[in-house]
Amino acid sequence: MNEPATAIEAAVAASPLHQLKDELDIVIPTIRNLDFLEMWRPFLQPYHLIIVQDGDPSKTIKVPNGFDYELYNRNDINRILGPKASCISFKDSACRCFGYMVSKKKYIFTIDDDCFVAKDPSGKAINALEQHIKNLLSPSTPFFFNTLYDPFAEGADFVRGYPFSLREGVSTAVSHGLWLNIPDYDAPTQLVKPLERNTRFVDAVLTIPKGTLFPMCGMNLAFDRQLIGPAMYFGLMGEGQPIGRYDDMWAGWCIKVICDHLGLGVKTGLPYIYHSKASNPFVNLRKEYKGIYWQEDIIPFFQQVVLPKDCTTVQKCYIELAKQVKEKLGKIDPYFDKLADAMVTWIQAWDGLNPTSASFSNGRTG
Amino acid sequence: MNEPATAIEAAVAASPLHQLKDELDIVIPTIRNLDFLEMWRPFLQPYHLIIVQDGDPSKTIKVPNGFDYELYNRNDINRILGPKASCISFKDSACRCFGYMVSKKKYIFTIDDDCFVAKDPSGKAINALEQHIKNLLSPSTPFFFNTLYDPFAEGADFVRGYPFSLREGVSTAVSHGLWLNIPDYDAPTQLVKPLERNTRFVDAVLTIPKGTLFPMCGMNLAFDRQLIGPAMYFGLMGEGQPIGRYDDMWAGWCIKVICDHLGLGVKTGLPYIYHSKASNPFVNLRKEYKGIYWQEDIIPFFQQVVLPKDCTTVQKCYIELAKQVKEKLGKIDPYFDKLADAMVTWIQAWDGLNPTSASFSNGRTG
Repeated sequence: MNEPATAIEAAVAASPLHQLKDELDIVIPTIRNLDFLEMWRPFLQPYHLIIVQDGDPSKTIKVPNGFDYELYNRNDINRILGPKASCISFKDSACRCFGYMVSKKKYIFTIDDDCFVAKDPSGKAINALEQHIKNLLSPSTPFFFNTLYDPFAEGADFVRGYPFSLREGVSTAVSHGLWLNIPDYDAPTQLVKPLERNTRFVDAVLTIPKGTLFPMCGMNLAFDRQLIGPAMYFGLMGEGQPIGRYDDMWAGWCIKVICDHLGLGVKTGLPYIYHSKASNPFVNLRKEYKGIYWQEDIIPFFQQVVLPKDCTTVQKCYIELAKQVKEKLGKIDPYFDKLADAMVTWIQAWDGLNPTSASFSNGRTG
Repeated sequence: MNEPATAIEAAVAASPLHQLKDELDIVIPTIRNLDFLEMWRPFLQPYHLIIVQDGDPSKTIKVPNGFDYELYNRNDINRILGPKASCISFKDSACRCFGYMVSKKKYIFTIDDDCFVAKDPSGKAINALEQHIKNLLSPSTPFFFNTLYDPFAEGADFVRGYPFSLREGVSTAVSHGLWLNIPDYDAPTQLVKPLERNTRFVDAVLTIPKGTLFPMCGMNLAFDRQLIGPAMYFGLMGEGQPIGRYDDMWAGWCIKVICDHLGLGVKTGLPYIYHSKASNPFVNLRKEYKGIYWQEDIIPFFQQVVLPKDCTTVQKCYIELAKQVKEKLGKIDPYFDKLADAMVTWIQAWDGLNPTSASFSNGRTG
C-alpha cells in the first residue's frame, strides 16, 4: 500500500499549499538523532526546520541529509536570551517554544520525534502538514456549532439554521491534530489501560466553540505565529520545576482564552499522525501528579478569566493573564508566582527577538 | 452487501439495549402511507410507534403489517387537547411534538418518513436506534472538550489534561443524529448547491459544550422525555403561521439553554440515517425566509438568556423562557407574542396529560 516517495513528492510540489514553504517553519524538540525525519522526507523536506536540542549541549544531533535546518542547544539559548533564558524549560519538551520565538515565519508546525506518517482508512499516507495548512487558511466558526463539522471542507457546508451573519467565520489561529496508535493519555489512564490503542479515524475538523477549553497536545500542532505566537508559551517544566507534561496544556488554556477574547479560531481533528511509543507511565506519574491535582483549580480559573477590553494585542492579553495567574493561582503554590514571572519574561524575550516591524515572510537558512 | 433481515433481527434481539423496548416510543409525523418502515422492520418492529397524521384527517394512512402503533390525526388532537390543541401545528411536521406529549415512555426516537437505513463504510446496515440509546445511556461531558471525542466510546477515553473531577460527566438528555446523502441545508444553500450530497461518514459522537448553541434537526433525533420532554416543543409552524422549517431549530435552541441551566448533556454525531429526497427549495424558501431574517435576532437572544436559580424543573425553565421570549422577541414581530403564549399552553397541555405521578415505564398498545 506504500506509494512511491517520488509520487508523493510530485503531489506535494504540485499542491497550491506548497507556496507556503517560505512562510512556515517546522519546530522539533529533541534529545536524539532525527532518523524519524526519513519517513517524513517527501512531505517535510521542502520546509525549513528549527531544531531545539534539549539536554546535554555537547551531544551531537544527526539530521538526515538534505534537510534545511537551524539547530539550537542550551548554550545557544543562553547566549541569545541572556538572563531571559530562565523562561525556557530545560530537560523537557517545553523547550520547543524557543523555536517559536526565533522563527520569523508566519506559520509554525511542531511535531515530536516519535511521531510518524499515519495512513488514512484507504491506506494512503496522510500529509499532516498539508491538512494543518488547510485548517489554518480556512476560517473558524467559534460562535455556533455546525453539525456537519467543518463547513469549509469539500462536500460540506453550513446546515439549515446556521445564522448567515456568522458564516464568514473568523481567522484560524491554531490547528490541533490527533494521533493514531498510542493515544495521548495521562499516567493514571496509561496504567489502567496499557494496551489501549487509538484506531478510530474520525474524518472531521471542527472549531472548538468560544468559551470552551480543551486539552491541547503539543505533539502534532500548527499555528499562525503572527496571530497567536506570543501566547504559545509552554511554561516552566522539567529540571528544577515541580511538574512536567503540562507544558502544552498550559499553552492550550492560555491560547484558548486569548483567542476567545480576540475573536480568533482554534480547530481540532484532522490531521492524524502515527504516535509510535508510549512513554513510561511511572515516570509520567511522577511528572504529572501535582498537575493532576492543580488542574482542578487551574481550569476553573481559566474558565472564569475575563480580559479587559483594552487588551487588544496578544502581548497585552498575555501580560494581563500573567497578572491574574499571580493573583489567583499564586495562592495554590509558589510555583505559580514563578510561572507568572516567567510569562512576563517570555513576552520581553519575544518582543526582543521580534520587533513589531519584523517581516514575517523573510525566511532564514540554517 | 445486504445482511439477511433475520440475522439483523437476531442481533437486535440479542442486544442488551433491547430491554428498552418497553421504555421507548418511536414518533413519526406523516401525510402518507408508511412504506418506508419496511426497510426499518428488523430494527424498529420490536418498538411501539406513535404516528402523528398531518393534514386531511379523513385520509387513511397505511402502516405495514406487524408494527405495533397508535395513530393520531387532527381530529384526535382536537378531541384530546380541546382548546389547547392550538399549540400543535397543522400542515407542518412540527405536529410531531404531540406524539412526545401523549407518550408515557422514558425515551423518544423521532424519524422522518423519507429517512432510510444508512450503511457504514464497511457496507453494514446502521442500527440508528441502538446508537441513539447508547448515546442516551452514557454520560455527556459539556464542561470541557475531549479531543478524542466521546470518552465513553469503545477504545476511547479522556485524554491527558482532562480534569478528573469532570470525568463522571452528566446525564444525557438529547442525542442528535446525522444524515448521509441529502444534507439538511436551508433553501439558499439548496439552491446554490443542488447536487451536493453528504458522503462523509464521521465516526464520532460528541457533547455540544455548555454555552454553545447548535442547529438541531428533527429528522433523526432521540431524547429522554423524563429529563427534557416538556422543552421539546416544536413551536407554531405551517398553516396560519408566517414561517416553517424552524420547528426543530426552535426546539433545539430551547432545549440547549435549558439543558445548560439544569446540567444536562446534548450529544451530536452518530448515528447516520440515509436521507432520500431533497425537499423543494423554492417551497422551502417561502417557508424559511422570515426565519432566516429573524434568527439573526433570535440566536443572540438565546445566547444571552439567563434562567433564574429557582427554575429547577424543565417546566419552570420553559415558562420562564416563554416570558423572556415575549419580552425580548415580541418586539421583532407579533408572531413571537403568539409563540410565547403557545409555549405556555404547551406546558399546560403537557402537564394535563402527564401528571407528575405518571409512571414512565407503562407502555400502551395501539
